[in-house]
Amino acid sequence: MVKLTVLYGNPEDPAAFDDYYQQTHVPLAERIPNVQRFEAGRVASLDEGEPPYHLIAELWFESADVLQESMSSPEGQAAADDIPNFATGGVTMFVSEVS
Amino acid sequence: MVKLTVLYGNPEDPAAFDDYYQQTHVPLAERIPNVQRFEAGRVASLDEGEPPYHLIAELWFESADVLQESMSSPEGQAAADDIPNFATGGVTMFVSEVS
Repeated sequence: MVKLTVLYGNPEDPAAFDDYYQQTHVPLAERIPNVQRFEAGRVASLDEGEPPYHLIAELWFESADVLQESMSSPEGQAAADDIPNFATGGVTMFVSEVS
Repeated sequence: MVKLTVLYGNPEDPAAFDDYYQQTHVPLAERIPNVQRFEAGRVASLDEGEPPYHLIAELWFESADVLQESMSSPEGQAAADDIPNFATGGVTMFVSEVS
């Protein structure tokens, strides 16, 4: 399995981020084809400090090829193209092969 | 479900990191009680650049309370205390509540 991890940095306006994410971005992400599992969660720190990110979203695919195809599809591109519309704290994305 | 995410920065000696991680750290992590799911994977960049992290490890627990108990147990402490022995690129840890 291959996992796409999306780490959203702390946004300028967390409430506006959360609203946009739930109402606009998640529906776009749910249209990405061949996603075997999708998880998103608000990040909390392990101590009293500010969390290093605001939100983590992860999408599991069967293989790296399927991930590439899915993210290159119109639905994948629409979801990726939407990120700059709300990710005011920046975004860190990477893939990992997990067993 | 609550997820503990551990992001290892790019180490000074990746081969030494990988050896230690597989042979010493994973067996310690596998002793942490009440882990519902464990995943670890080498990070790859989405483009030609250097990946932002070397390895991502994630542990799922039933709740935040169970996570806290598990990481406070002798086995959880042993795994956490082992991290400085090999994480020469630093480590970023946080929790998230996922559905």
